[in-house]
Amino acid sequence: MKRIEHIGIAVADLNAAERIFTDVLGDTPFKREHVESEGVHVSFFQTGESKVELLASASPDSPIGQHLAKRGEGLHHLAFFVDDIRAEIDRLQNLGYRIISGPKDGADNKEIAFLHPSDTNRVLLELCAERG
Amino acid sequence: MKRIEHIGIAVADLNAAERIFTDVLGDTPFKREHVESEGVHVSFFQTGESKVELLASASPDSPIGQHLAKRGEGLHHLAFFVDDIRAEIDRLQNLGYRIISGPKDGADNKEIAFLHPSDTNRVLLELCAERG
Repeated sequence: MKRIEHIGIAVADLNAAERIFTDVLGDTPFKREHVESEGVHVSFFQTGESKVELLASASPDSPIGQHLAKRGEGLHHLAFFVDDIRAEIDRLQNLGYRIISGPKDGADNKEIAFLHPSDTNRVLLELCAERG
Repeated sequence: MKRIEHIGIAVADLNAAERIFTDVLGDTPFKREHVESEGVHVSFFQTGESKVELLASASPDSPIGQHLAKRGEGLHHLAFFVDDIRAEIDRLQNLGYRIISGPKDGADNKEIAFLHPSDTNRVLLELCAERG
């Protein structure tokens, strides 16, 4: 049922990071967005059925700004596509997993939610569905 | 050309992590391997066209053992599938990217190489091809 929707990477400089991933992937980003509610500028690359999402902070107190200050650049979160985000949240909560954020509107016309990384080996997992 | 072949996650306890990702993905791992040359026990889940690879240390001085001691559990590396790993290494080296390891045999019958994370926003990127 699931697939990797995207992998999120925290970067200090979006332009510089776009050049690097354009080199690596041999393709340019297909979209840029400013997600005001999250305080981030994002850039998306398509790679097969999944995306690489570069995230740069739009303000130092945004979640990505805080992550960059504390841990620096690098892999930030892993997002799985689900058909029905509310059903998936219910299923996981019934298994004891905690939702720390969402469901809410995210970038790329998606509805998103995040699991508590303490429940999932310190991996920040995102659930991601098409916005209905 | 490229797709995400797998996302590698460093975990302290492979059995416990398998239970967590079985819950999240709704599916059990399809393979376990011991990669002696890397000092790791790995477990693979299929998710769409990509895999989730859980990596547990088989000895404290393995790369994963050192990573766990220094940074703890969490997202470890991102692997892209390529058709011709030597051509891809040549292409990236010509663009100035450094190869820190490989090409060499890896898990899951793959030939692998790693780029220097200082060149790629502190993301450890792996190139991954079918072993010929």
